[in-house]
Formats: sequence, C-alpha cells, structure tokens
Amino acid sequence: MIVIGELINGMYKAVTKAIQERDAILIQHLAQDQVKAGASILDVSAGPFSKDPVADMKWLVETIQKASLVPLSLDSTRTDVVEECLKLTKKRAVINSTNADPERMETVFGLAKKYNSQVIGIAIDKSGVPNSVEKRVELAASIVAKAIDFGINIDDLYLDPIAMPINVAQSQCIDVLEAIRQFRTIYDPAPKTVIGLSNVSQGSKKRGLINRTYLAMAIASGLQAVIMDPLDKDLVDAMITAELIANKNIYCDSFLEAYRKK
Amino acid sequence: MIVIGELINGMYKAVTKAIQERDAILIQHLAQDQVKAGASILDVSAGPFSKDPVADMKWLVETIQKASLVPLSLDSTRTDVVEECLKLTKKRAVINSTNADPERMETVFGLAKKYNSQVIGIAIDKSGVPNSVEKRVELAASIVAKAIDFGINIDDLYLDPIAMPINVAQSQCIDVLEAIRQFRTIYDPAPKTVIGLSNVSQGSKKRGLINRTYLAMAIASGLQAVIMDPLDKDLVDAMITAELIANKNIYCDSFLEAYRKK
Repeated sequence: MIVIGELINGMYKAVTKAIQERDAILIQHLAQDQVKAGASILDVSAGPFSKDPVADMKWLVETIQKASLVPLSLDSTRTDVVEECLKLTKKRAVINSTNADPERMETVFGLAKKYNSQVIGIAIDKSGVPNSVEKRVELAASIVAKAIDFGINIDDLYLDPIAMPINVAQSQCIDVLEAIRQFRTIYDPAPKTVIGLSNVSQGSKKRGLINRTYLAMAIASGLQAVIMDPLDKDLVDAMITAELIANKNIYCDSFLEAYRKK
Repeated sequence: MIVIGELINGMYKAVTKAIQERDAILIQHLAQDQVKAGASILDVSAGPFSKDPVADMKWLVETIQKASLVPLSLDSTRTDVVEECLKLTKKRAVINSTNADPERMETVFGLAKKYNSQVIGIAIDKSGVPNSVEKRVELAASIVAKAIDFGINIDDLYLDPIAMPINVAQSQCIDVLEAIRQFRTIYDPAPKTVIGLSNVSQGSKKRGLINRTYLAMAIASGLQAVIMDPLDKDLVDAMITAELIANKNIYCDSFLEAYRKK
C-alpha cells in the first residue's frame, strides 16, 4: 500500500496557525512523524483559507524538504500554485489533482509532462460527484484516455473514485468499492487506485472505526494507495492486516512489527 | 448478516467439561449470551473428543432449547448424529455440513428434505481443500446442482468456500474472498455464502485483529452469513460498520447502538 500522509493540511487549525506563523518546527515534525509511521508520500495543502496560496504552499514545500526528502503530493485547486511548487520539489511529485474536466486535464497533464510528475485523477466533472459506479468508470476512463494522449505512463496515474461521507451519501460507499474494482479493468496495465479515506467518516462519530473498516474493504476491492492519517495506529494495524490477508506480505507471527521495521 | 454463534463447541475445554458433567447452566448461558449478542443461529458441536456423540449432541440440543428457542446449526461429521438431533429441534435447523462428495450430499440433502432443514455446503471433496478459486467454484456448483436435484430451495443453502488459516495457507485467504464473490453468480437467485471465520486466525497471534479485518473484507466481497464468536465486541463492531458501509442498514450517528437494539 502506498500511504500518502494527509496531516499537513490547512484544514487542521494547528497547521493553519503554523503556516501563518511560519512555524517550521511543527510542520517538519508532522512530516517526519508521518514518514516514520510509513507514509511514502506526503500530501501538502495550505487549505481553503490561505490568503496567499502561492507563498504558503512554497513555504510548506521548502520547509518540509529541509526535514525530509519524501515525494510530495501537491494538493491545490489552483494550477499556478501547483506549478510554482513543482519548480521546488526535489523528489518526483504527485499533482493532487485533476478531475475529468477537459480544460483541467489539459493543464494538469501538461504540467505532469513538463515536470515529470505523477497525477491523481478524480472521477468527478463539472456536473459534480457521480451518483453511480458506471458514471465513475466513465469519468475515470476519460481521464485515462487523456493521460495516454499526453504520453503519461499509466503507472504514474492514480485514479480516485471519490469517497463520500457515509452520513450524507451512504449508498455511494459501496459504489466506490465497486469502482475501485472496475477501475482496474479500464486499461492494461491497470492504473493505480487511491482514495481520500477520511472523507468517508467526515462528520460521523466513530471515525476511526469507520475509516479502518472502510480501508480493509477497499483493500479487498484492490486499492493500492490511500490518503490517510498514518499516525492512527489502529488504522495502520488494520491496513497491515488487510494487506497480509490480500497476500501482499508474507505472514509471520509478528507481522505488525515486521511491517513497521521495513 | 446472519450470525451463527460458534461457542457451543467441544473444541473449547469448558464446553467439553460441561458436556461430560451435564452442566446445563453453562451451556444455557452460552446460548443466551450469544443470542443476546446478535446470533440468530447457534452452532452446536460435541467436538471431536466426544465418546458418545449421539447422546452428547441430543443432550446439547435439548439443553439449549430449554433456554432459548433459536435455530440450531447441527455440526457433526456423523449423519446419524445429525438425524437424531433433527428429530428434536423445535425450530428449523441447519445441517452443518455436507461437502461435495456425492454420497455425503445424497445423505445430507435427503435429511434436509425429510426434516425441512437448511444446509451448509462446503467446497471440499475427498481430495481435500481446493487450492484455487476455480476448484472452489466447481465444487460449490456441484453442491448447488445436487441441492436442486433434491428440490432444496436455493435460499436454504449456504455455500462455504472454506476459509483456511493464514499462517499455513496465506494465499488462500484472498482466494476465499474471490470465491465468495463468484459463488453468488453460480445460480439465480444467488445462494447464500458463509465462512467459519475463526479458522483464518487459527494458530496466529493477533487473532481478533485478523478475524475482524477478514470479516470486513468478506462483507465487501458479498458475504451474508458467518460462523463466529458474537461475544467478541470489537468483531461485532467491525461487522456492524462493514454492513453499514455495504449499505445494509441506514446510517445514524449511534449506528452501533441502533444495530444492537434491533
């Protein structure tokens, strides 16, 4: 499983405060803790309330890279912000994200080609979140087609079926699992699939239980990457165990410790 | 989810002792506790060390029924034992089990027809546990075909892909999940699927974690019934949550409590 750490995000008050006060220590600790807990990519978002996203995101990228040379997932709706960050990243970055809107895809895949980046493609378009598996697959297929037009290696594309909160769109939770399964058949070789896990429990109680149960179910459906909180130990335990069941690692009695030592 | 409580089984030392000493109280408490925790069927097995399985199983059936009128899953390799119990059961019973061996199927489906019972059919034959999804589906299909020959209602058949311990047959864990998915396509209407959950963690450390992760993954694959320990609260929490994600119950913030109140 490719774990994309989600904690450096302006949605969290402490992170917003750290960005405003240019508190490098807090951000660097968040980076190092997530990497230590198994994240191989770190998502970076200044959040929706940033007054100067270019400056804030550039500061975040530079601050993180002073502490940890891990690939970054540049999470911004603004492609100019993404490009400024791409100029700074020292490891191959992930652009988070494009959707299936033709103009957005042109810009994002253009940047991906120019800066040799990976891309998360979300199965959504201007008409909003799809309300069926079929629509998700249709949008994902259009993203794959455009990526191929741009000469993007299919292995550098992550398809995201867009997990929705169970408390507002319950029936879509199982649709997303089925979409993960079907996304794998869109192209050969199969594109990677990814979800933003915390979305599913947004606004719910029992968030941890919902997140880790959903992740196990998504791994059963073939998920390969996840944007999540790697510091949630129970969640990571569930992930390790689900991957063991899916035969991705070799069983030993101390499989939790063995995975973490890797 | 149809929960078949597994705790009245001579594999457990306390149960063997209770059977030997005809300790009705212990057995009746185990029955009532499991029903209270959500079991809608109770598995009953005198275990492999019973010296007089007919007498022991008949005593168990009568003892349980004095405390709880719940359907029983009569778990014995000996069909004469099963038949003696079928004469006593007050609710419609489940015969646990037949395999795909033609002679065994003749006897078990004959009993099911005679006593109007349900049947668990395990995808195994004289050559042993299948080592592929295809073989499991082939054996399950032969069980379905024989059940139909006997005029058994497909809804009264539970197909079991035979979950194996992860510490000895790791690669089969994911095969079993895929078999659950494929069993649903053998016949229309789809037969029910069931697994003996605890098998997967037999001999492992972290049994609870493995069991609940596997159950969530099996529910993602379409599982409808499970033989398990309903007194394992974390396991039941995971089951409730996985079923919520699979859209089987309506979300509310207190979904765990709501499920248990039902």
